Amino acid sequence: QMPRGNLETVHHRALVLAQIRKWLDRDEDFTKTMYPSLYSTSNDQPRHQPEQKKVNLICDVMRAAMECIDPEKYCLSILTAHVKKNPPELETALQKVHDLRENISPHAAAVSAEEALKYLLFLVDVNELYDYSLGTYDFDLVVMVAEKSQKDPKEYLPFLNTLRKMETNYQRYTIDKHLKRYTKALGHLSKCGPEHFSEFLNLVKDQNLYCEALKLYSSNTQEYKDISSLYGEYLMEKQLYEQAALILARAGIFAKALDAFLNSGSWQQALCMASRLGYTKDKLSNLARSMAGKLVEQRKHAEAAMLLEQYTEDYEEAVVLLLEGAFWEEALRLIHKYDRLDILETNFKPAIVEDYEVPNCPEFDLLSETSSVVTPSDMSSRYSHSNSRISARSSKNRRKAERKRYSLKEGSPFEDMALLEVLGENVRAVDSVRGDVHVLLKQLVLFGFDEQAEGLQQVLEEVLQLMETSIPEIWTPALQQSSLNPVLGPNSTANSIMAAYQQKRMVAPAVQDPELLVAPKLNKNLQWKLHLFQ
Amino acid sequence: QMPRGNLETVHHRALVLAQIRKWLDRDEDFTKTMYPSLYSTSNDQPRHQPEQKKVNLICDVMRAAMECIDPEKYCLSILTAHVKKNPPELETALQKVHDLRENISPHAAAVSAEEALKYLLFLVDVNELYDYSLGTYDFDLVVMVAEKSQKDPKEYLPFLNTLRKMETNYQRYTIDKHLKRYTKALGHLSKCGPEHFSEFLNLVKDQNLYCEALKLYSSNTQEYKDISSLYGEYLMEKQLYEQAALILARAGIFAKALDAFLNSGSWQQALCMASRLGYTKDKLSNLARSMAGKLVEQRKHAEAAMLLEQYTEDYEEAVVLLLEGAFWEEALRLIHKYDRLDILETNFKPAIVEDYEVPNCPEFDLLSETSSVVTPSDMSSRYSHSNSRISARSSKNRRKAERKRYSLKEGSPFEDMALLEVLGENVRAVDSVRGDVHVLLKQLVLFGFDEQAEGLQQVLEEVLQLMETSIPEIWTPALQQSSLNPVLGPNSTANSIMAAYQQKRMVAPAVQDPELLVAPKLNKNLQWKLHLFQ
Repeated sequence: QMPRGNLETVHHRALVLAQIRKWLDRDEDFTKTMYPSLYSTSNDQPRHQPEQKKVNLICDVMRAAMECIDPEKYCLSILTAHVKKNPPELETALQKVHDLRENISPHAAAVSAEEALKYLLFLVDVNELYDYSLGTYDFDLVVMVAEKSQKDPKEYLPFLNTLRKMETNYQRYTIDKHLKRYTKALGHLSKCGPEHFSEFLNLVKDQNLYCEALKLYSSNTQEYKDISSLYGEYLMEKQLYEQAALILARAGIFAKALDAFLNSGSWQQALCMASRLGYTKDKLSNLARSMAGKLVEQRKHAEAAMLLEQYTEDYEEAVVLLLEGAFWEEALRLIHKYDRLDILETNFKPAIVEDYEVPNCPEFDLLSETSSVVTPSDMSSRYSHSNSRISARSSKNRRKAERKRYSLKEGSPFEDMALLEVLGENVRAVDSVRGDVHVLLKQLVLFGFDEQAEGLQQVLEEVLQLMETSIPEIWTPALQQSSLNPVLGPNSTANSIMAAYQQKRMVAPAVQDPELLVAPKLNKNLQWKLHLFQ
Repeated sequence: QMPRGNLETVHHRALVLAQIRKWLDRDEDFTKTMYPSLYSTSNDQPRHQPEQKKVNLICDVMRAAMECIDPEKYCLSILTAHVKKNPPELETALQKVHDLRENISPHAAAVSAEEALKYLLFLVDVNELYDYSLGTYDFDLVVMVAEKSQKDPKEYLPFLNTLRKMETNYQRYTIDKHLKRYTKALGHLSKCGPEHFSEFLNLVKDQNLYCEALKLYSSNTQEYKDISSLYGEYLMEKQLYEQAALILARAGIFAKALDAFLNSGSWQQALCMASRLGYTKDKLSNLARSMAGKLVEQRKHAEAAMLLEQYTEDYEEAVVLLLEGAFWEEALRLIHKYDRLDILETNFKPAIVEDYEVPNCPEFDLLSETSSVVTPSDMSSRYSHSNSRISARSSKNRRKAERKRYSLKEGSPFEDMALLEVLGENVRAVDSVRGDVHVLLKQLVLFGFDEQAEGLQQVLEEVLQLMETSIPEIWTPALQQSSLNPVLGPNSTANSIMAAYQQKRMVAPAVQDPELLVAPKLNKNLQWKLHLFQ
């Protein structure tokens, strides 16, 4: 044994060769692996695409050169070039071996088919090569590979004989299936006639090959319809109701399509299906009323009202829904269309006054807590009529659940970030409410509720002014710079890093959520105020 | 003359007193003026509100104390407390002077009315006090002030005599108008009866007092209607058509209101006015067709189609408009509602195929220029059906015109910021296009254009993947930190500041547009792809 300290200086030839081999084997882009940029490593996925291209390119170029100079002399190297590609071109290689046996070369130096096959077996696993030979559907080639391999003829010959007896397409389907090449198998099976169609459908279902199956039949065939029906069921199970409905509808399976469209909330398409199914007026009316109910649950009042007016002829209920959804002008249109001005007094005016009377909920905004001006508590959700109220609220909650990384609790590590987040949300909510308030103001004025309208305009104006003066106080230019001060970097010291660790601020939240540091922008162009109260 | 160097040490008594007087006179919040924070000065407007409050508070407290102890003794100081408020309470002060004359005090030390008035005239400009005395409508007081002043009786007595002869309300109106107190003048004039109403309307028009005028009459009066008519004309001149229409409509001036609603594009309200005016079916149909034309110009196809279907009974044209606006499902609904499946072949299918064939415009996105993947040129404007195409484009251009502070030209000072801006716009545009593409994909599949749909899904998928890998390469964490490196600050040196000046980077653009440094976020939750092509 040599002294330990000298071990590092020993370069045994075999070890050196092994190392060089490893290096030569490496197929890497040094700009990516040896000199990665400081910042891009964490984000970049390793890219195999260009590296594979490099190997394939070299294989192709080498092979072309060898085939040009002397294909017989370089026969084995050419086979190597095929095999080393990614994915390996085993079928082509096998075909060349096959050709060698067919056309025996007069050259003395020429490689025999047997030699070539032996060589291939040295490069490729025998079972893999056998499978590939099967995949050429060329039984001569299969036998040749099998013979050269260590395979037992009792094992493969009966299988080959069974295959030989089959009709060509069914034979190929059987081979494809054996090789798990299901798409090819499907193609061959589709040519085997109607007696094999149930087998076809089973394969489609087992292997989820709906799209591939549909491509094999013309859309006016019964087979296309059957596949579509199966695909529709599958998509329904996956809860992809609308896509199921589309697949069913285009195959003419209208009843199932109607159900699927109902499930997906596609009420217009559901009406189309009802029409295709020849629904009577009564049946259509019932369908419309049921869909309107669902739409109201989703706070889609305008659509629901349209269904009730046009398909059930219940314009009164339609007006009620429009008022519930704060579609004031559409409600007015129906009231006048049916000449029912009495509804103005009984429903319309009470509705706009009710909408004006913003509920005094116990939950107050942060903005109103930190200031003397009381922000109408949930103004934004109350007035966000453009979206449905319920869905707007639930999606908002979901978003909050997703994003609330920082705790508002006093003294929590990122209390400042939490405050920025909530304040930003509030500012944006109040800013976006102006459009809805403008619409309500107009209705209040139209029906003479000037006092209420003036009050509403004034409250919102005050809140907006408060926000405008508060924004530069909250989002100071200093905020951006100080919070972005990196923990590591040329200006950091051992002490500053330790301090950062102790504050658990190692991952600067500013870098995680840079948008929290950007002041929300108010849309100053929106003319929401009425001249009457200015 | 003293030697120059000693001048600074001289404190002449008069100068010192003058300086102290100045200091005492100051009414400032030292936290705002002497110790302004480093960052808030540039943004904060000077705040007069709290300072005024301070003076007013002290005046009120002092006055209350003096009135409690001995109002007669402190009479002049009490007057001072009234006058020094902001705004000065001159009427109250004058009233006290007046009271002094009415109730002569038995006290020897009591101040006489004459003394008090003299004192007031010392504090307040005589003309101002005269105007205020006029404003009390108390002619005794007026004469008293006039007498104590240097005013010529030949000047004021004829005017006072004319006033004395007038009916009370008209007299007060005349005084208010003389004092330019137009709102008060309007109130008194409104009580002078119908013979003065044209004078009333003239004053309203001259002084833009429409809102104040409307408050003086009940909404069912002819006067209210006349004021509304005048206000409507004024708002029309100001191009506030919708507000004009609302004012006219609520006063029952329906024909003018209809015109104004038409001008503002409020088609539903216009229909309501037509109903109020008792339009015949034919007249209503013509109105609807004309409004539909305007709506199409604004690319509001859904509304236009609704008008044609429901008010002109031209559902064929309605379908054509819906297809033009890419409202596929609504078009299908009408086609089925009227059982005109032939339109599917003649119009529907050609329309979806046309919409699929995105024009190959010469203008390419920056993204496509810098990469090998061709982004469908103006995908976003093409597919942004949710807004109108024209308005979306023009508003986009307007926004660009507003914001393009940085030039994309190679080598321009903020080329990097310009690139970030344009790349961000492109990413957001492509990201937002997915919803529209999803809607089109469904129609293509429904009508069997699977090949086109698959191609479209694939192209968008590739662009989105390119964007996803490009975003962390464009918006690196380093970008935020390096660009935010302040020119000034604790780490700056004379050299670094000079260098920044020479680069014309003194105002760091990062601080001006911090949102450009924040990577756009892709909405990964949107399921836009169809299962059929996955």
